[in-house]
Amino acid sequence: MPKVSNKGQQMPESPIRKLVPYAEAAKKKGHKVYHLNIGQPDIKTPEVALEAIKNNSVKILEYSHSAGFESYRNKLADYYQNHGVSVNAADIIITTGGSEALLFAMGSTMDQGDEIIIPEPFYANYNGFSTASGVKVVPVISTIDEGFALPPIADFEKLITPKTKAILICNPGNPTGYLYTQEEIQQLAELVKKHDLFLIADEVYREFTYDGDKHYSVMNVPGIEENAIMIDSVSKRYSMCGARIGCIVSKNKEVMTTAMKFAQARLSPPTFAQIASEAALETPQSYFDEVISEYKERRDTLICELNKIEGIKVATPKGAFYCIAKLPVKNADDFAQWLLEKFDFNGETVMVAPAAGFYSSPNVGLDEIRIAYVLKKEDLIRSVEILKEALKQYNN
Amino acid sequence: MPKVSNKGQQMPESPIRKLVPYAEAAKKKGHKVYHLNIGQPDIKTPEVALEAIKNNSVKILEYSHSAGFESYRNKLADYYQNHGVSVNAADIIITTGGSEALLFAMGSTMDQGDEIIIPEPFYANYNGFSTASGVKVVPVISTIDEGFALPPIADFEKLITPKTKAILICNPGNPTGYLYTQEEIQQLAELVKKHDLFLIADEVYREFTYDGDKHYSVMNVPGIEENAIMIDSVSKRYSMCGARIGCIVSKNKEVMTTAMKFAQARLSPPTFAQIASEAALETPQSYFDEVISEYKERRDTLICELNKIEGIKVATPKGAFYCIAKLPVKNADDFAQWLLEKFDFNGETVMVAPAAGFYSSPNVGLDEIRIAYVLKKEDLIRSVEILKEALKQYNN
Repeated sequence: MPKVSNKGQQMPESPIRKLVPYAEAAKKKGHKVYHLNIGQPDIKTPEVALEAIKNNSVKILEYSHSAGFESYRNKLADYYQNHGVSVNAADIIITTGGSEALLFAMGSTMDQGDEIIIPEPFYANYNGFSTASGVKVVPVISTIDEGFALPPIADFEKLITPKTKAILICNPGNPTGYLYTQEEIQQLAELVKKHDLFLIADEVYREFTYDGDKHYSVMNVPGIEENAIMIDSVSKRYSMCGARIGCIVSKNKEVMTTAMKFAQARLSPPTFAQIASEAALETPQSYFDEVISEYKERRDTLICELNKIEGIKVATPKGAFYCIAKLPVKNADDFAQWLLEKFDFNGETVMVAPAAGFYSSPNVGLDEIRIAYVLKKEDLIRSVEILKEALKQYNN
Repeated sequence: MPKVSNKGQQMPESPIRKLVPYAEAAKKKGHKVYHLNIGQPDIKTPEVALEAIKNNSVKILEYSHSAGFESYRNKLADYYQNHGVSVNAADIIITTGGSEALLFAMGSTMDQGDEIIIPEPFYANYNGFSTASGVKVVPVISTIDEGFALPPIADFEKLITPKTKAILICNPGNPTGYLYTQEEIQQLAELVKKHDLFLIADEVYREFTYDGDKHYSVMNVPGIEENAIMIDSVSKRYSMCGARIGCIVSKNKEVMTTAMKFAQARLSPPTFAQIASEAALETPQSYFDEVISEYKERRDTLICELNKIEGIKVATPKGAFYCIAKLPVKNADDFAQWLLEKFDFNGETVMVAPAAGFYSSPNVGLDEIRIAYVLKKEDLIRSVEILKEALKQYNN
């Protein structure tokens, strides 16, 4: 029997994969499970996008251009320009989700054995894309005590080797909710300039900031035009995760020419989803105002409620819709399983994502969980009540 | 300025990429260009698929399961069973086009530096996926004189090294139109069994056979259940190239578990396109009867007309909608450019794909072109007239 690849064996599984059967079993027992573990928003997709799909006039569902509809790229460039990011249609390739954009970015800039430095905790699938690309992840630890701010630049410099090709950040961050300041982005810019590295910024949560803080894009830093690669997606902006439309953006022509070769090999991004994404650009500002105010309220509620629990430490997120909470438990993995397998509070329980899966360093974050605040306010309040009761019972 | 990867530099460009600006220039001059170069069918997508999209009731465009909708996988398994291929939903992962299925297959079975044997000429993007996966393509030549039949098994065996992990075939073939016989598939089965290799079969043209010949799937060969991996797609079957929905199918559990890890990293295949693809399974048989009869007529017309040109040699395709024609020219690449740049016949010309791009061996197929018969009959007749006149002028 032929064997699967080493690469395939090394491909990591999702941090919550092990928990899924326990969640299913809990539901079979009749327990209600509040999902604090997922990044699938409950927010409605803009009508204008859904209507465009219903009213489409496609007769032959053809391939699109490999870089995506020209009309969409033009309008998307306008969108960025209106949001203070100066890019043109030629700097954009439409991809199948931010996922594919990351794969194109890695494939275009890194070879087998090359290294990418990523502040951890980070979006767990960065491990998957790196493994698939034959790239080694070199983590630099950010801590809950510092609110997951950018680690000192000296920490990055210590890790740079001749194999280092890029630094990857997620801004605002999944799973931390941290929003890098202009000064932090500037520090990174100087670093990549000095060491001739790419700076890949996953900015898929760029619109989700809550305290008047401005999101500062890597595309806006003068002097690193050749270093900066932005990853974006419609998934969160328009609650269109299932569209699978994202983009890779860079002013580095060589990078874009190379990414285009990867894009051509896979022919085109999905056509229907591009129709929806192009139409979504007409979403009224009121939609975003409502969504942001909803998330802000959820965040404030969640953080307020969590802070009432003794022994919990939480870094208030400044963006995205996640936070990391440090629990008064030794092993959050074990606790998360126990929540589903052995616990219920009047027939209800919660599913959380153990944070260890968001760290690449071993034995870090073992007592932390990631909470996604994509549930409505009353469900969040109830979830934290359940969590509080659970911690009491678990620690007895 | 940071440099792109070696892998990225080695990524091949599409065989017709160089010609595109010449085609655009020809159109600007007011010339009509008949596209014999592309695999985008002009056949209408089934109404049942388009209606499902128009009538969809999506409110939140969510991620689907990473393996695709369960309902779709179940119905797809039924489809295969009804077509004599015995697979279950558990043997299927829905992918973003056949393209992604190929990437998952390569990633799951091969590591950097491993080798894959592919009969050439082959679908040019196999080069791209191999380069992206760090895999070395080892070609085995099939010839127009043999109608692109399977090369002798001894030719394969000569090429097998400890690095060889898989054999990849396209059946029916793009660009050859060749349909492997049951005996040929059986020979390959014995070979992969003997050497413990995977047999990856790209069967995206499985429904397109014209002379009563039966398509024989690798999934139907007893004894190679652990070796066989099938790649499929809705692109050609339902003229839904822009959906970007395909699948990877195997009874090898380890392969499927591994492919699933790649699938999870990219979250899910596109949701709208899955709705259309699931609905497309209800397409009435009359649709296929019409389409196949249309393609058969086109093929017969094309081959008949081509054979009228002196000095042309063509292998009659048994399936798919391509054929390779050997022209009385030294360099088909040069000829294809000349057709667009310097030639017109009453204001009309044709665009063809030089076949050298479908060979991995250097200096093979230099006098061959690939013709896609995805134009209607009268356009095909006119195209061949133009080609005939062009050859006359070019060779003077």
